[in-house]
Amino acid sequence: MPEKTTPPRLEVIGVTGIPEVKPGDALGALIAAAAERQGTPLADGDALVVTQKIVSKSEGRVVDLRTVTPSPFATSWAERVDRDPRLVELVLRESRAVVRMDEARGILITETHHGFVCANSGIDTSNVPGDEMVALLPVDSDKSARGIREDIRGRAAGAEVAVVVSDTFGRAWREGHVNFAIGCAGINPIKDYKGTPDAHGMILKVTAIAVADELAAASELVTAKAIGVPVAIIRGYDYDTAPDGVGTLIRESSRDLFR
Amino acid sequence: MPEKTTPPRLEVIGVTGIPEVKPGDALGALIAAAAERQGTPLADGDALVVTQKIVSKSEGRVVDLRTVTPSPFATSWAERVDRDPRLVELVLRESRAVVRMDEARGILITETHHGFVCANSGIDTSNVPGDEMVALLPVDSDKSARGIREDIRGRAAGAEVAVVVSDTFGRAWREGHVNFAIGCAGINPIKDYKGTPDAHGMILKVTAIAVADELAAASELVTAKAIGVPVAIIRGYDYDTAPDGVGTLIRESSRDLFR
Repeated sequence: MPEKTTPPRLEVIGVTGIPEVKPGDALGALIAAAAERQGTPLADGDALVVTQKIVSKSEGRVVDLRTVTPSPFATSWAERVDRDPRLVELVLRESRAVVRMDEARGILITETHHGFVCANSGIDTSNVPGDEMVALLPVDSDKSARGIREDIRGRAAGAEVAVVVSDTFGRAWREGHVNFAIGCAGINPIKDYKGTPDAHGMILKVTAIAVADELAAASELVTAKAIGVPVAIIRGYDYDTAPDGVGTLIRESSRDLFR
Repeated sequence: MPEKTTPPRLEVIGVTGIPEVKPGDALGALIAAAAERQGTPLADGDALVVTQKIVSKSEGRVVDLRTVTPSPFATSWAERVDRDPRLVELVLRESRAVVRMDEARGILITETHHGFVCANSGIDTSNVPGDEMVALLPVDSDKSARGIREDIRGRAAGAEVAVVVSDTFGRAWREGHVNFAIGCAGINPIKDYKGTPDAHGMILKVTAIAVADELAAASELVTAKAIGVPVAIIRGYDYDTAPDGVGTLIRESSRDLFR
């Protein structure tokens, strides 16, 4: 009978009971309190994945479309593809480059000011109260993650955690959206196996794993849209704490074959 | 004091102690036995993520480069980018189209016969015994997943599980690889929220989530390269069992802006 081994394991726990987030709310406090209330208080070493929507709301990154005056270019494109010109205007303002404009289907893929390539600069019209309200991505999502992390560290119900801010994007070549990391603090988003021997003693070559994206993807399985679970705790994953920030996840244009 | 709620949660458990896989091995039996031995026997409703390498090995999809005669085209490209012409030959054979050839860095992005867009047709040179041995993707990775699922269902230590076969691919626009689903059985790889009301009663529009890719990504956090953990059990995730197969994850060329 072989010896019983201890398998590697982690838990993904949704955080429920976070109230509707308002501008200026301290998210770290809300998350720590909600985790405590549901019987899963935050612990040192947890990785928190926080969905973008509540981060944007706490930072006041919600815009009333009635306040937006579209440019001639936004108006022209919007008319051709039957979209809201005010939304197109915001998408353009939130981008530093247009990557693809597909007139047949009205798809606008942009590069955001952060460097993320996604549809509509990540602007989301769901889960925002009010017909005419939309949520923009945080201005600096690494800073948002740091803020949440530091807020949690300073609290009685808090702990030393990593924070990943996530959003749901489409992908090239594949159908369906998945959750990606758009900000992080206290965790190196890339794990590099370069030079590590494999199970046969060969040196691994292709080796950098985007663990922050994998944590974001894992969290979506419990935070799924529309169910009032905007945060997940990932417990038991042994991450590297530094260097953090999502910059290393973003491929430079000059190294990218798909822009 | 608010009532204590039951948070959604799932567990990701690595399966250790699977012996070196040989052609013809019944993977389902090996996985069920190893899970049992480590004290986490498979249970109805588990989703198993099985990394491609052991699937390819069990199906004899391992090739000795010394048996490969490169074509003139493979030889010419390989010489220009300083790669092994026999490996380039295999990459071309395993593809139905070349998507990008980057001479400066010797990068070859192809569309495999299954329809996956990835570097080198998913051929992997690591974790295969012998200097000159490489592993190809399974010929039909949905069929591989079905075989494992049915094998497990029929065993004493088995159960009614979903199976996702995974591989680690690069992405457009982002650095780092993540795990993707390349085959599945007993699970609908897409979860569609179309028409579901969000937390404010608005109808969700962008709504199809590639849950099989998220399960694959989650699993990589415990199966990570080179540590002898080729399978993960995901326990507690409530998936739709049908329709299965990864076909719905693959975006048709005509709908893809990045080929």
